[in-house]
Amino acid sequence: MVEIKDIGGEFGLIRRLARLVQAADDRVVQGIGDDAAVVRMAPAPAPYLLVTTDVLVEDRHFRRRWSTAEQIGEKAAECNISDIAAMGGTPLWMVASLVLPTHEKADWVQGLYRGLHHSCRRHGITIIGGDTTQGATATISVTLLGTVPPELLRLRSHARPGHLLAVTGPLGGSAAAIALLSAGLAPSAYLMEKHRTPRCRLDVSGRIAPLAGAMIDISDGLGSEVHHICTASGVGARVDAAAIPLHPDVRAAARELDCDPLDWALSGGEDFELLFSIAPDDMARVQRTGCEIFPVGHVTDQAAGIFLQSPGNRQHPLPGGYNHFL
Amino acid sequence: MVEIKDIGGEFGLIRRLARLVQAADDRVVQGIGDDAAVVRMAPAPAPYLLVTTDVLVEDRHFRRRWSTAEQIGEKAAECNISDIAAMGGTPLWMVASLVLPTHEKADWVQGLYRGLHHSCRRHGITIIGGDTTQGATATISVTLLGTVPPELLRLRSHARPGHLLAVTGPLGGSAAAIALLSAGLAPSAYLMEKHRTPRCRLDVSGRIAPLAGAMIDISDGLGSEVHHICTASGVGARVDAAAIPLHPDVRAAARELDCDPLDWALSGGEDFELLFSIAPDDMARVQRTGCEIFPVGHVTDQAAGIFLQSPGNRQHPLPGGYNHFL
Repeated sequence: MVEIKDIGGEFGLIRRLARLVQAADDRVVQGIGDDAAVVRMAPAPAPYLLVTTDVLVEDRHFRRRWSTAEQIGEKAAECNISDIAAMGGTPLWMVASLVLPTHEKADWVQGLYRGLHHSCRRHGITIIGGDTTQGATATISVTLLGTVPPELLRLRSHARPGHLLAVTGPLGGSAAAIALLSAGLAPSAYLMEKHRTPRCRLDVSGRIAPLAGAMIDISDGLGSEVHHICTASGVGARVDAAAIPLHPDVRAAARELDCDPLDWALSGGEDFELLFSIAPDDMARVQRTGCEIFPVGHVTDQAAGIFLQSPGNRQHPLPGGYNHFL
Repeated sequence: MVEIKDIGGEFGLIRRLARLVQAADDRVVQGIGDDAAVVRMAPAPAPYLLVTTDVLVEDRHFRRRWSTAEQIGEKAAECNISDIAAMGGTPLWMVASLVLPTHEKADWVQGLYRGLHHSCRRHGITIIGGDTTQGATATISVTLLGTVPPELLRLRSHARPGHLLAVTGPLGGSAAAIALLSAGLAPSAYLMEKHRTPRCRLDVSGRIAPLAGAMIDISDGLGSEVHHICTASGVGARVDAAAIPLHPDVRAAARELDCDPLDWALSGGEDFELLFSIAPDDMARVQRTGCEIFPVGHVTDQAAGIFLQSPGNRQHPLPGGYNHFL
């Protein structure tokens, strides 16, 4: 029998499922295939409705021995808010469903919800519903609604050759923390925070969106997200390895574990920084708003391919990042 | 440590979580505590946005040996659509997330999505997004959006003393099928269909909503749903045991297993019929639309309590229905 790994893992599966459920609905501006779905609730100038959903599974996305219930709840909220930020939108309403083991402690569940609520309150989001049920593995499923004015909507498909590629902060911190923890070593406070309480970049998305082309959040590693933008936009890209921002603690962790910190930036996950394309002139305009951004490469014609440029001008195919089931 | 069962099971937990996440948001018409959440996206007369979410866990809500992937997908869709129907609304857009074991068969996942899509197409719903991830237990998390004109919104809190209570069809079929299957016996075709491919009652909800008071879908047994209406509306109720509609196959299954078929109707689950309160004069008006409905009791003052009236005029407290974690 054919398994998911045989059809291209998570992303191959999603392509097949997207084809299965195609429907003619002219109110759907963007269906499966971006950070959030986009629907038109009312004629212009009414804002579009954004819908995003993420599932976190115990011992895959979080571990109780590494994080408190509050931290897990906050992270579940932030990773969804990050998807709304990546569309240029404003998050508004959340539903959160929980699958919980039969003998789950009430305190842990309430801690989880306190964490969700804490993050939601920070961003002006109201939790309006959910579902709770029993199951062997604790699982958190969050759906977040938001809105975006049509002119501020940023899709993965908006990158154009000649655009620069930039990110909003250093990458690989969460992956470095996981690598250290898995090896029985203690991450620095900075790395621990990047893993346990990552923050979405809603603080800067509103300044970047008006000027950006494509935008996406970095949840599966920079490599994967550059590929997503290139596929959706029909473009190529060159990423400059030396330009990828890395925190000193990430470099130190890589030395400690004798590995390449770029692997964490390119193929790790859960950074929740934003990656966007932008015309060179507009880059400076974003920077003048006081928003710290890091150019990491540029968009090329599709025929030029998708490459990572290493020091010494060597080019390698850009790795694809994390893909479930592979 | 306090477990969920010690704080009143699923419903006790939900009450606590709802208190934790209270927020002042005047666009939220109805938060946690009804079949769907209700938010105001734009000033009247714009329709309200409805949001509902349900999680189905393998071996708890579905079993692969009892149902095909297509049937499981259809059921996941119908149980969410049923929640939108219970609000008087129209379902529009769905996101569906899947947790899947590492070696999951691609065919099974595609079957699941075909089932979701089949039900969605029947009701004019577009699947616009989702998430897929790995985990030990196959889990389906669906969030469904819909709309309802403000004047047609039906909440659990709309029941008034003097209203009749009615349901849209016979109850207990799915529970009877599960009881037979669990005992190694073969359910009739009717019972098997009620368990494997239950249909939500969107076909009649649009005719009932304009005239009904409170409305709710029967997902946890009639007893539980009557209690929910009474709690939300601040009323009491008397349910007439002899009036609860039971299919002959449910009665036959009860004889075969030597149990009371009313237990399945009152405390079983997944009937997905609608329960509603309605003024006596309006009952006939609904029936004149050709909609088959079954009166099962009436709404009383809160002080009169919540009772089941058995033949011979004996009164018992109405059982509460299915409650996870108890």
